Formats: sequence, structure tokens, C-alpha cells
Amino acid sequence: MDGSHARLERLTSMLRRRGVILPAFEIHGGVAGLFDFGPIGGRLRRRLKNSWLEHWMSQGDIVEIDSPTITPESVLIASGHVGEFNDHMSECISCERAYRSDHLVDGKHPNPDILTADELDAIIAESSIHCPSCGATDWKPARPMNLMFSTRIGAMKGGRTAYMRPETAQGMFMLFPALYRHFRNRLPFGAVQSGKGYRNEISPRQGMIRLREFNMAELEYFIDPEVKPQHDFSKWSAIEFSLVPDPELGQPLKMGPEQAATENIIRHPTVAWFMARTWDFLVGVGIDPSKIRFRQHEGTEMAHYATDCWDAEIQGSYGWVECVGIAHRGCYDLAAHETATGDKNLRAWRPYDEPMIVDKTILAGKGSVIGPVFRDKAGLVNTALEELEVLTSEFPFKLSLVDGTSVTIEEDMIEEKRIQSTEHGEWFLPHVVEPAFGIDRILWHVLDHAFDESEKGGEPYTVLRLNPSIAAIDVAILPLMEKDGLDDLANNIHQTICATKNLASYYDGSGSIGRRYARADEVGVPWAITIDHESLQNGSVTIRRRDDGKQMRIQPDDLVAALASDTISALF
Amino acid sequence: MDGSHARLERLTSMLRRRGVILPAFEIHGGVAGLFDFGPIGGRLRRRLKNSWLEHWMSQGDIVEIDSPTITPESVLIASGHVGEFNDHMSECISCERAYRSDHLVDGKHPNPDILTADELDAIIAESSIHCPSCGATDWKPARPMNLMFSTRIGAMKGGRTAYMRPETAQGMFMLFPALYRHFRNRLPFGAVQSGKGYRNEISPRQGMIRLREFNMAELEYFIDPEVKPQHDFSKWSAIEFSLVPDPELGQPLKMGPEQAATENIIRHPTVAWFMARTWDFLVGVGIDPSKIRFRQHEGTEMAHYATDCWDAEIQGSYGWVECVGIAHRGCYDLAAHETATGDKNLRAWRPYDEPMIVDKTILAGKGSVIGPVFRDKAGLVNTALEELEVLTSEFPFKLSLVDGTSVTIEEDMIEEKRIQSTEHGEWFLPHVVEPAFGIDRILWHVLDHAFDESEKGGEPYTVLRLNPSIAAIDVAILPLMEKDGLDDLANNIHQTICATKNLASYYDGSGSIGRRYARADEVGVPWAITIDHESLQNGSVTIRRRDDGKQMRIQPDDLVAALASDTISALF
Repeated sequence: MDGSHARLERLTSMLRRRGVILPAFEIHGGVAGLFDFGPIGGRLRRRLKNSWLEHWMSQGDIVEIDSPTITPESVLIASGHVGEFNDHMSECISCERAYRSDHLVDGKHPNPDILTADELDAIIAESSIHCPSCGATDWKPARPMNLMFSTRIGAMKGGRTAYMRPETAQGMFMLFPALYRHFRNRLPFGAVQSGKGYRNEISPRQGMIRLREFNMAELEYFIDPEVKPQHDFSKWSAIEFSLVPDPELGQPLKMGPEQAATENIIRHPTVAWFMARTWDFLVGVGIDPSKIRFRQHEGTEMAHYATDCWDAEIQGSYGWVECVGIAHRGCYDLAAHETATGDKNLRAWRPYDEPMIVDKTILAGKGSVIGPVFRDKAGLVNTALEELEVLTSEFPFKLSLVDGTSVTIEEDMIEEKRIQSTEHGEWFLPHVVEPAFGIDRILWHVLDHAFDESEKGGEPYTVLRLNPSIAAIDVAILPLMEKDGLDDLANNIHQTICATKNLASYYDGSGSIGRRYARADEVGVPWAITIDHESLQNGSVTIRRRDDGKQMRIQPDDLVAALASDTISALF
Repeated sequence: MDGSHARLERLTSMLRRRGVILPAFEIHGGVAGLFDFGPIGGRLRRRLKNSWLEHWMSQGDIVEIDSPTITPESVLIASGHVGEFNDHMSECISCERAYRSDHLVDGKHPNPDILTADELDAIIAESSIHCPSCGATDWKPARPMNLMFSTRIGAMKGGRTAYMRPETAQGMFMLFPALYRHFRNRLPFGAVQSGKGYRNEISPRQGMIRLREFNMAELEYFIDPEVKPQHDFSKWSAIEFSLVPDPELGQPLKMGPEQAATENIIRHPTVAWFMARTWDFLVGVGIDPSKIRFRQHEGTEMAHYATDCWDAEIQGSYGWVECVGIAHRGCYDLAAHETATGDKNLRAWRPYDEPMIVDKTILAGKGSVIGPVFRDKAGLVNTALEELEVLTSEFPFKLSLVDGTSVTIEEDMIEEKRIQSTEHGEWFLPHVVEPAFGIDRILWHVLDHAFDESEKGGEPYTVLRLNPSIAAIDVAILPLMEKDGLDDLANNIHQTICATKNLASYYDGSGSIGRRYARADEVGVPWAITIDHESLQNGSVTIRRRDDGKQMRIQPDDLVAALASDTISALF
């Protein structure tokens, strides 16, 4: 623990010193749980996000959307977030500081997430938990907390309560009608969104693991629950995942995703499919595959909407950390919004194999009454009457017409009629499978797994072995000296690389070449090029590969072409 | 006006119907000033943002950062935003609805932005402005408003006020020390950030022009005010910009950026440089160059921090709209944060050409007193005493040491000393030039300028002539029929394109080919490919160019390669 703690300190300090990830607003004293991505971290974060988006959109049935972070209260009441209080807070009686109850009992229970307020109080009392601020051991009873940031939209009388979104998912549900139209009314399809999420943590800690504002990325995949999903798992036939089922259901095991779905350990094949694709993404951006496991949520820990949920956990400096949640949300969300708003546009159409003839009773307008009363609207009134799903026995009642107006129907205007109608299909609420990613947690673990400490000439030496596809800087440009025109030549190459799509270099002119290589290695620059006096004569420069220090001479034009086409490694 | 209003209605309706830009939270009744980017708009927005980032980072001395949107109050007090009340609100006495005062007097004054509360009240009274809600003409006096969304960080006693950021700029100022280190202490350099900004508009209107949550993108470029900037304007030597100086300073004119800087119409060459580079960006993403003009802020309209400011305005369906502000902020922001925090890390070092010998008076610790009192800290105390810039005559006083502690200095501990010191340079506050972009407004105008209405066979026909570099979808995949294996072949090609980096296609299988071309043209898909029975025989497909309808047959492999390398147009 001590050794790994010291390593964590060194990594954190490097990230801060080099402008990768820094505490935000530091000159103003900082705010716990808010971080900046600095001159190195900014592009790294964007490349990781773009990799994520491209990974999913490459599937062909997934599109990107973007919705506001400010969310009116009514949406989050419907979704269950306003009434959700899964987190508990305990307040120290002596110093009045508040802490998350599950954090206080950390280590006293294998999974504090699932405890109720009473259970938390019992453990806090039994274990005489000390207040981290003042050391006292007297606590008020744990109370449930809603951790959303609240604000108000508009001024004065017109103002209304809103929250900063706790997840991006609601944006995709709101857009279901537009998505359904876009995909020409054919399921399955999905939408992704990557953006900020907010959680007003009581006592943030653990660096990038528990933030108040975080980068998240979610995919909502809409399916017809009556259609058996077809997924091709052949790509993962030789790979075994570490699976940790709900302890009541089974023991940890190693198994491929297809078998796990077949044996009903993973309860839905589409959940297994997204677990497999998630594994691909994580490994692709540089997560060590031996440090990934999938853990199934226990019943009491499952979010209010989920019918099965597996977390992808990554092992790193903070132990096993949940970085992705892959949940089968059923039709929970769409049904909740339909109930709250009465809007029927969140449904999809399922045609019957054969048309069905059904007998039913409808309300029909009496032509002799309807005609004179409603005149040119009589047709609309008749249609609306026939489409009523529930027959009324109370009169008069208000009837909405498709033109947006409504009329009052008296008892003498209508009569009940039994008819036969031919039905070609039905409207239903799609089910949703949702892989939700904590981008900051994944980025943190990418850095953690890439951080390679060794020695060089008796001195500590660190290399950040980032995958070149997400490295913040592609090339370091190092003129041997900043004179004789070496600096100008170096600057020209630097400009050319920066002006090339998807490439970024940085110019570093001072210090010994060895120290400059070390600076580049420390932040994971995959390639360094040195401009020396031979460069002035024949134009060639030396390129050095970060991962093995191997060098070769190359012409700048060939270099830029090979970098742009991602074929540079093949030259070695 | 009527014709252009009808065009605006048709454009807005198309954007909504096709899932480009839609009112957000619509099934919950919607919120004015909040919009969604739908299945078509999501990727369009991201490509525009990425183009923006790449445009600036290609310069080689600009890096990307990302900072939180939640901003503690102290930062925005220091920056002047909490005390800033440039917007006025008028409340109707009869219905109590509030409106922006400058909106109420729209059309009654050439530039309502610059009016004071009294001037606004005078115009409202003189013109008998009617309340848009109830029609009454009695108004309470205009009062200044702070339009930030406020929230609270943390719970209970530890809670503190914060705001959703009104601009991204503060994040770059906070990171100045990290940027300065990253660029190895050499000015000039810049940082960009693209993300959400927030403004709690009283009465949002005009679609995408006035939003409560918007996508913005800002560049802070840090310069030494004593170094004459070197900018190469040769690229723009044949281009004349439309310039509209402050009316007190001159008349509208056409002039290149270099000449405008030389003649001091644009007051700083770096401002002229960023105006020119802004022009490149706007034209590059599809803004009609004849619809761009640069308007200089009048003295009273200038933000609290600016010493010169030019807006890039774009002409479209809402008239001339400010889409970019290019401001010379001087050292306003860095100085403000230095004053508020006492932190000296927001300065840069300027070496003198020759070391300077200066006579000065310092406070020196008396060794016989300092030593015994402060022991191993005596050295730190002496250093801190010598570095005091203002000599104190009041005792005792508190002295901060570099180790973060502080000590109390009594009068008997020190003596004044006159010394000669050699100074090699000085610390100064860099100046800042800031181009700030409203991404949504630019995106709106890109769509507005691309929206091309014509006729085909007597029917209205619209083509969205988006630049292929930002089009939401690169290729439409159209099987002639969804049988005989044409659908499978089409799906394979669709999968291949989606799996190719930076490419996205969509599959559209139903309706006549003509209608499917029209659907693709309507949202600006640059390329459509048709799979027919000949494709089954020899593999070739037909590719059609959006802009002229020209077609040719091509093998799918060649097609994907040409699309990926952006050389497809050369094949025609």
C-alpha cells in the first residue's frame, strides 16, 4: 500500500506539473472535485472522447446527439431523479461537517453502496467512526441526500427550478421521436452523447474518481423486446472476461460473452454484446486487459430503472473502480416520460405478421347532430371519437382534435357502435440497453496503466506509454541548438506538422537532448525528432520512437506523410 | 421581410423535422432558449467545433485546455462578472412579466445595447412601448440584471455560491501558470477552449441567436505589450474586409487587415491578425464572404475589460448578427486575479537586453536578533525581507515566507540598508487578445447560407449546400430495392464506411430513388451511392454528387479510399 501510494503521489504530481490534469481554480483556493485539463490534458481528453464516439458510431446504427446540461425539474421528476435519494449523509454533532455515510463506513462493509440509513447508522455506532475533521464520534442519523446542483431558469414570476443534469441519458430519451424518424421507424438503433454531468458530492476525494463535474459519455440503444437479438460474438470467441455475478447468483468466473449470455449469467444478449464492445474500447485506448472485470449489480444496489446491470471495473491505484455501467433499463424511462406527459410519441410501431380482425365498441357521432353543430369540423370530431381508447360514460366531456383545438361532446351527440376493425400492428415502448461511461475515470486509468517508472543511468526515469492514437502530442520537435538556422528549420517542421489534420507537435528548444527526450517521454509523446547540422546539409532529421528509443534518419516530407497516414511505425 | 420570414420558417421547420436542431425538452413543454442537436445536428456541431479547434491549433503556438463550467463566486467577483450589470430588465406593471429593456426599444434606437437605464426608460415612455404579453404601456423603471445561473457547491455549512460560467475565458486565465510552463516561459502563446457557456436570458427569442445555454469557443492569446508583433498578412493582401469603425472614429470602409492596422483603424496588429484568421475560419466552414463585416464596439458598449473590440457580424435571416468578438483585453483579467488573490504567478519574465544596476533601499534582518528568534528559518526570513517591494514603517507586521508559513517582524529585528543590485529582467502582466466565438450562431448562419431553395419538376426542392468538411453525413447508401441481396450489399458498404475513421454514412432503403436523393440533399449529404443489379454482377455502384447531380460508377473499395483521403471530387 505504501509503495503504491507513493507511486500515486508521483503520478499525480507529474500530471499537475506537466499540465495534464490540475486542481481547478487553484489561485482562488481551489474547489474540491473540480479539475482542469491543461495544455497536455486538453487534447488527450478530446481524443479519448472522439475515440469513444467513433467506436460506437462505427457500428452504423448509432448517431450522435447533444442536449442541454440545464434540465427542467419536470423532466427529472418524471425520470425519478428528483425523488431518488440513494446517497446518505452523516453530520458530525460536534463540528457540523457533513460526510457521505458510505464513505465513513468504508472498509467496515464489503459494499457500503447497498446499505440503508439504519444499517449505516448501526455500523457507524458499532465501529465508533471518527469524524475526519474533528475526530469526534457522535453523529446525527444518516439522511438521504439528493446530489443534484439546482438552479433557476428565467427571472421573477416566470422563473422555474432546474438542475444540472446528473446524466446525459435523458437527452436521448427526449429525442426518441427524432431518432425514430431519422432511422425511418426501424429498430434497433442507438444514440450517443458525450458531455458534462454533475453531481454535488458532499465530500469529494480520490482525485479524478469522484468529481463534482465530470465528462461522461452514454449510449442508449433502443430495441424491440419481442425480437430476438442477433449479435455476432465470433470476434470474442477466444477471449474470457472476468465476471463477478451478484453473490446470490453465482461465483466469480472467467467466461466469454456469448457463453455467459447463453447460460443466462448475463441476462440479455444485447447487454453481453455491449460488454464485449466496451471491452474492445477500453483495451483499444490503452487499458490493461488483465485489469478489467465485469461486476453485476446486486438487487438493492441497482438503480431505480435497471433490470440488469454490469459494471466494467478497472483496477488501478484506487483499487477496483467502476468506470462503465451497462444497464438494461427496460422501458422504464420512456414509460415514465409517457406517463408524466401523456405524449404517445415515445413508442415504436410493431407490424403484425398477419393483419388482425378485432371486434370493438366505439363511440360514433350522430351525423344529424354532429353536422349542424360542428360544421366543417364534423369530420375531425368523428375521427377523434372513433379513436377514443376508453369509452366514456360521463357527459359532457372535452375531446381533443388533431388540429389542436378541442370541442365539448354532449350525450345526445353520440351513440355506441360495435364494429370490426382490421389492425395491422401495435405501438409499443421500446426497451433500452445503456452503456454509460465515466470518461474521466477511464482517462485516469489510461494514465495510471501507462505510467511506467524505471531507471536510466541510476536516476528515476518515467515514460507514459500512451497509445499513439490518443497521445496529447504526436511529435516533439527538438533543434539540437537554437542557432545556425537549426531553430528556423525546426520551427518550419513544427508548423507543417501542426497544420496537418489530426497532428500536433510541440517545439522544445532548450536543455540537453537527453533532458528533452525525458520531458517528452514523461508525457507520452510517441515520436521525437531532432534537427542537427546534417539536417542543414541534406534536409534529413532524426526520428526517435518513445517506446524503445530506436532512431533513424528521415526526410521531413516522408515523416509528415507517414505520421498523417499512421504508418510511421512500419518504417522501423 | 415577408418573403425572408417565410424562408426562415421553412428552414427552421426543416431543421426540426430532420433532426438537425430542435427545441429541447419538447415533450415536457419545452424551455425557451434551450435546443437539442439531433441525429443530424450532433455530428455537424462536433465537426464544426473540431474544425475550429484545428484551425487555431494549426498555428503551432496554441494548445487546447478544458476547465469546469461550475465557477466559484470568488473567481467571477475578481473577473468583474458578479458586479457587471450590462443588461436591463423592464417589468410590466400590469402583468408583472419581465422583458429585456433593450429588446423593448428595438427599432427605436440604432444600437440599444449602449443605452443607460434612464435612456431606456425615456424611450419606453416616449414611444409608449406595449407589453408583448398583455399590451399595457406602464413599465417599472429599467433595472440592471446579472444574467448568470447561480447554484451552490457542497452541502450544509461547507456550501458556497457558484455560477455556471458566462464565458470560457476565465479557465484559460486560471491556467496561465501551467501554460507559461508548457511553453517554456516564452510569449506569445495561446490557449483555446470550446464548451458550454450559460446566460440566464430574461426572454430568449430568435431561435439559435439568443440561447440560455450555448456552445462557445474562445482563444486567449498572451503577448508582451512591449514587443512589436510580427504578423505575415500577405495571405490577405488581395482581400478587402468590410470594416465599420466606431461612428465617432470613421465611416464604414473596405480595406485589407494590414492596411487597417497600419492606419490605426484597427488599433493593434494582433487584433488585425485574428480578424484575418477569423475571416478564414468563417469562409472555410461555409459562411458567404460577402455577408461578413467587422464592426468596432463603441466606447460605451465595450465590455468592462476591453481596450478595443471588433465584432465579426454575419448577415442572415435575422439581419446582421454578432457571431465573433475579437477583443484586446489588455492585462485586465490577469491583473484582476492577481489583485484578488495576491498570487504573483500570473506574470511573465522579460529579460533586459543588458543587466541593470539599481540603487535601492531594503529591509535587512539584524543577524543577532533574527538568528536566535527564527533559527533554521532565519535564511527564509532574510530573503523575504529583502524582496519586500514596499518598505513598511509600521511594526509589528506579518511576513509571508516561501515555505507557506508566516512570521511576525518586530521593529528591533531589522534595519534599513541601501544596496546596489544587478537586475536581469522584470516580471510583468502579459496582455491578452481574445477572439470569442458563438459556435451556435455560426452554425446557424452556416445552415442559413447553405439553405438553397429551388424547383424540380415544378415542385419546391431544397439542397443544403454544406461544405463536405462539416456535413453531418458523408454518404447516403441507397439500395435500389431491399431484396435480391441489394440490401445486404448496401449494408456491407454502409458498415465499411462507418467503420472508416472520420466517415459516416446512413442507410435509406425505402421510397423512390428520387425521393431518397431529395431527402439526402435536404440535409446536405454530399454523396449518395446507389446499389443496383449491376452491382451484384460486377460490384460497382453509382455515386452521385449532391451539388450538380453528376453520377459515375465506381468500385466500393475505390470509393471508400477516395472518401477517406478526401479526393473523391477529383474523380469527377
